Amino acid sequence: MAIKVIGSARATCTQRIIAVAKALNVDLEIETLDMANRAHKSPEYIKNYQPFGRIPVLVDGDFQLFESRAICRYLVHKYQNKDTIQLIPEDLQQSSLIEQYISVEMSEWGTCIDKYVYETVFKKMFGLTPDEEKIAELRKAAEQVLDVYNQMLEGKDYLLGDKYTLADICHLPYGQHAYNAGLADVFDAPSRPNVARWWKNISSQPSWQATIAN
Amino acid sequence: MAIKVIGSARATCTQRIIAVAKALNVDLEIETLDMANRAHKSPEYIKNYQPFGRIPVLVDGDFQLFESRAICRYLVHKYQNKDTIQLIPEDLQQSSLIEQYISVEMSEWGTCIDKYVYETVFKKMFGLTPDEEKIAELRKAAEQVLDVYNQMLEGKDYLLGDKYTLADICHLPYGQHAYNAGLADVFDAPSRPNVARWWKNISSQPSWQATIAN
Repeated sequence: MAIKVIGSARATCTQRIIAVAKALNVDLEIETLDMANRAHKSPEYIKNYQPFGRIPVLVDGDFQLFESRAICRYLVHKYQNKDTIQLIPEDLQQSSLIEQYISVEMSEWGTCIDKYVYETVFKKMFGLTPDEEKIAELRKAAEQVLDVYNQMLEGKDYLLGDKYTLADICHLPYGQHAYNAGLADVFDAPSRPNVARWWKNISSQPSWQATIAN
Repeated sequence: MAIKVIGSARATCTQRIIAVAKALNVDLEIETLDMANRAHKSPEYIKNYQPFGRIPVLVDGDFQLFESRAICRYLVHKYQNKDTIQLIPEDLQQSSLIEQYISVEMSEWGTCIDKYVYETVFKKMFGLTPDEEKIAELRKAAEQVLDVYNQMLEGKDYLLGDKYTLADICHLPYGQHAYNAGLADVFDAPSRPNVARWWKNISSQPSWQATIAN
């Protein structure tokens, strides 16, 4: 029985999981939730799957798990082997640096890139009006955060150096939306050559391209 | 040579690490940074330790790591053994649930409890004026989030069931401040008996009490 993920192949957090599954060559069954009709807020869904009424949720036989990054780690630890790409290396220092960058993605990156995507992309989807002043502020915040990423990525192809890992994948869903929705010049700025190189390296991964091709 | 953590024994994110070290009986050397004089924003600190200018940072010989939850996991994996408390069990489902709850702490809990602490505690420390309207909003948000925690904690003493783990510890620093700064009645409300029991169980741990005794 394939592992099931309840969510939406077009939703950012579900895409994070799909990108991991594709990188590991693991089959996932995506059970699409009717978000437009707020199926994620139904009492049944909240009771049986996700108490905060959010997607995605992993269902692996009797085991259930929510929060996309926790689900990604689960898939890596369950399916990664010597024949697959090593999305979390065994070495403790290396795996700890991955956790450092995943936390940075949630806190520093999330507070500007994710919010920029909300203002520019999701608000339109939900029929709300983007706040242009807020967009300008978030753009400036993204510039500052990507300046720091440029330092962190000095001399590296990926966050961990020469290896594409879960740390990179976690940045892709919101990064791709932000890049497409007006921040390409920030990612590719000549003043941030390390960010531009990194972004090209990670966003061109076949497993990511396959994730967003649907 | 003891492992060093650059930070402050009174800062929330440093306390998260100290609580883990004390639970594991690991000696930590805390190098106190002069935050009042903004030592964390000095060019040297930013260049050598933390590119975003934040605390804490772990220094273990040649290895450096930032982001408190990543540091906590590092200490657990390096020092946990069969004679110590198991803050991250080996079982994949159990360790994945810990990751689920750490993400919930960062996203759901963090967006109300941490912000409440900022408004009520940190603003005063920084000489800023708390925004009473915002405090009332955050209190309401905390009530809603703790309603969900009450469901998640049904029949459990700790988030993972009968085991005190890293998932619980991650909630302690901001939770303790929020509890002391006006939310005790929300944590202990008769409508949330599971939250009240859990909070008593985790905040009374000797390793946590020793962490905040300094």
